[in-house]
Amino acid sequence: MSVCITEVIARDIRFPTSRSLAGSDAMNRRPDYSAAYVVLKTNGSTDGSTGGPERLEGHGMTFTIGRGNELCVAAIEALRPLLVGRRVDAMTADMGAFWDEITGDSQLRWVGPEKGTIHLATAAVVNAAWDLWAKRAGKPLWKLLVDMSPEELVRCVSFRYITDVLSPEEALEILRRRAPTRGAREEEMRERGFPAYTTSAGWIGYSDEKLRRLCREGLARGFSHFKIKVGANIEDDVRRAQIIREEIGAERKLMMDANQVWDVNQAIASMGRLAAFDPWWIEEPTSPDDILGHAAIARAISPIGVATGEHTHNRVMFKQLFQSGAVRFCQVDGARLGGVNEVLAVLLMAAKFGVPVCPHTGGVGLSEYMQHISLFDYICVSASLEDRLLEYVDHLHEHFVDPVVIQAGRYMPPGAPGYSITMKPESLEQFEFPGGAAWVTGGQSP
Amino acid sequence: MSVCITEVIARDIRFPTSRSLAGSDAMNRRPDYSAAYVVLKTNGSTDGSTGGPERLEGHGMTFTIGRGNELCVAAIEALRPLLVGRRVDAMTADMGAFWDEITGDSQLRWVGPEKGTIHLATAAVVNAAWDLWAKRAGKPLWKLLVDMSPEELVRCVSFRYITDVLSPEEALEILRRRAPTRGAREEEMRERGFPAYTTSAGWIGYSDEKLRRLCREGLARGFSHFKIKVGANIEDDVRRAQIIREEIGAERKLMMDANQVWDVNQAIASMGRLAAFDPWWIEEPTSPDDILGHAAIARAISPIGVATGEHTHNRVMFKQLFQSGAVRFCQVDGARLGGVNEVLAVLLMAAKFGVPVCPHTGGVGLSEYMQHISLFDYICVSASLEDRLLEYVDHLHEHFVDPVVIQAGRYMPPGAPGYSITMKPESLEQFEFPGGAAWVTGGQSP
Repeated sequence: MSVCITEVIARDIRFPTSRSLAGSDAMNRRPDYSAAYVVLKTNGSTDGSTGGPERLEGHGMTFTIGRGNELCVAAIEALRPLLVGRRVDAMTADMGAFWDEITGDSQLRWVGPEKGTIHLATAAVVNAAWDLWAKRAGKPLWKLLVDMSPEELVRCVSFRYITDVLSPEEALEILRRRAPTRGAREEEMRERGFPAYTTSAGWIGYSDEKLRRLCREGLARGFSHFKIKVGANIEDDVRRAQIIREEIGAERKLMMDANQVWDVNQAIASMGRLAAFDPWWIEEPTSPDDILGHAAIARAISPIGVATGEHTHNRVMFKQLFQSGAVRFCQVDGARLGGVNEVLAVLLMAAKFGVPVCPHTGGVGLSEYMQHISLFDYICVSASLEDRLLEYVDHLHEHFVDPVVIQAGRYMPPGAPGYSITMKPESLEQFEFPGGAAWVTGGQSP
Repeated sequence: MSVCITEVIARDIRFPTSRSLAGSDAMNRRPDYSAAYVVLKTNGSTDGSTGGPERLEGHGMTFTIGRGNELCVAAIEALRPLLVGRRVDAMTADMGAFWDEITGDSQLRWVGPEKGTIHLATAAVVNAAWDLWAKRAGKPLWKLLVDMSPEELVRCVSFRYITDVLSPEEALEILRRRAPTRGAREEEMRERGFPAYTTSAGWIGYSDEKLRRLCREGLARGFSHFKIKVGANIEDDVRRAQIIREEIGAERKLMMDANQVWDVNQAIASMGRLAAFDPWWIEEPTSPDDILGHAAIARAISPIGVATGEHTHNRVMFKQLFQSGAVRFCQVDGARLGGVNEVLAVLLMAAKFGVPVCPHTGGVGLSEYMQHISLFDYICVSASLEDRLLEYVDHLHEHFVDPVVIQAGRYMPPGAPGYSITMKPESLEQFEFPGGAAWVTGGQSP
């Protein structure tokens, strides 16, 4: 009997982070970090590390900040008919075709296409399929990818709408160039891990004292790059930038994140003032849809780099950010793009254009996801650590079965099979919205 | 007692158009034209044309093609807390602020921002608010707009993210320039109507014989511009283009619509072959997100023009289409953009860049909406009919209380108060999904 997907469970999981203002910024003032969580159930079994055979499942999620999470759950439900009954062998034998089918429903694509809630749901579902594959293979996702040949990897990528900048042949060429030296980089990662930077110090709702204390704690933990939220008020931004510079010194890198609050000319003017604090990058200076606006800002504020990506909704948008020279740092987000397949397309385009990939992880589960992507990117695609860092945010990891491990400011490669996104059953129960204990006793989202 | 919004009703209305292939194209092969329909109920009354006082309501909808319509309905529900209890006077006194509030919920914006289902829901809700205002004023929407001063109109526009190309002052200047001559153009429209073109002949699922017959019928009805669907197969495209050219002659305009099926280089190659039939425009040659791709196609295939807009999800994307010279025709869609406010922003930018607006209406309710927009655009913004046409599709009008009126290939200005989008109660009942008679007896969507 062949192993099939037998059921799709979608759950609305929300953490009441707005109560502490962890995650607050100029645009997103009171986020409740949330997951539209999906489980692909199968009729197959696997030998889990805890002993006897257990049911094979794929877990995935997309990330939201509270209200609207129910729309992503509903969108996962809308994708169910494309999943239930599907043979797992056939799916993993041609993940590129699977992706085209998930994103290609001729009626559902109207409410995207490849954007908004339907694409967020695609991320959850596609990542769950990859988790399923990796668990079945008994490997962490990054290792599943690293063990694939260039030809196998290219078959997982959808090239639709990007062939004008990257053909399958060019993608193969990039991967083949790095293939002979993969082993050394894998060994290096296993020993030393992938470098991280921290966003946990500079949330906009934090007091100056808390900012100062968190900088010191970050330094003690080995971080060399610090990010601060800006954009609510320029005088506050200047004062907070001064504090953080005082704490981290002139040598360490300071990044700034405006979370889309500025118009193009405002962004240029604000960065004119904040340039005094030597920022390495300004993140999301304006609307995530404004490719030409980002390019104009990049030209005006050089040598400060422009970074964006957490709201860049598909590979077509990334293609244009690269083509127009709009970004110096590519902050790909594996829960905003339509899962691993589309992330691979963006990594390959970034390599072609020479743009370093520094994934977005500010949210629940994104660190768990993106560590796999950065490891794969370094080992198989970029072969460089220059200007490459993976964001780290220090909350909510306790809800995962295999949480990230940070040592001396670096992500250590995960070893458990899968995509590291499986949440503990008790966390799922406690934080389910609106019926879980965290919401029933703690009150509704404000 | 002040008049307030007391209730928000959202309904899932679907027409089983896939059974006839009306609306079929290369990307959307079996659409069921659908509406996520919203009613804003109030505690106020109005004197309806049918006699005694009746309850004041605002009706609106967004358009989808079937599956996924339920996600837009759910997104309207998510916006409900921003609507119920709102004072109608305060809302209509500052529609710009209202729009900012509807689109600015700090958690909901994460699942957009301003794109996908949440923005489609915004369209339904915002248009319902305008319908409410127009009904209360006792005017059709176009006349409500035409009677506003330039200052009042500019207060309805959100300039966020577009100030680098259009300031409120520039928008005022555009409107003031046309203000003294509004009266003559209004009179002209009342007498002659706004020119239309027809898409009803060339649906891709139709046979060659049906195509030929529908061309003849279109000519008999006074149409001078005809659109054909292309992109499924280039040999079919060539044959169908030849048929339609034979039927309409060399002088009349032939437009082509690829509905996003091509990559950039494919689009250029295909139009190289189809250029023999002298197309006036190619519509949606590639991904709606690919601004730079559209610009590259436009450069390569000139003098054939590029048209797009039905999937252009917000004013930031239109801004860039204009900035990059990517479009010769702006096909704004009032159910894809976030309602009248955002449409106004696009009309004003189009005027600044000298791009004619030819709204998209291929769908249910879009002709009813966009006739108001084209009338306003001509009377108050563009003051020109050159290269300006409003699409006409001949099905599903019978479900509206005030359907469009076409005379000699022109849209005649509607006279009933509101935005013409109110559907007949019996149509709403019959086509409600999945419980309406049309679905219970006719079977589920294939």
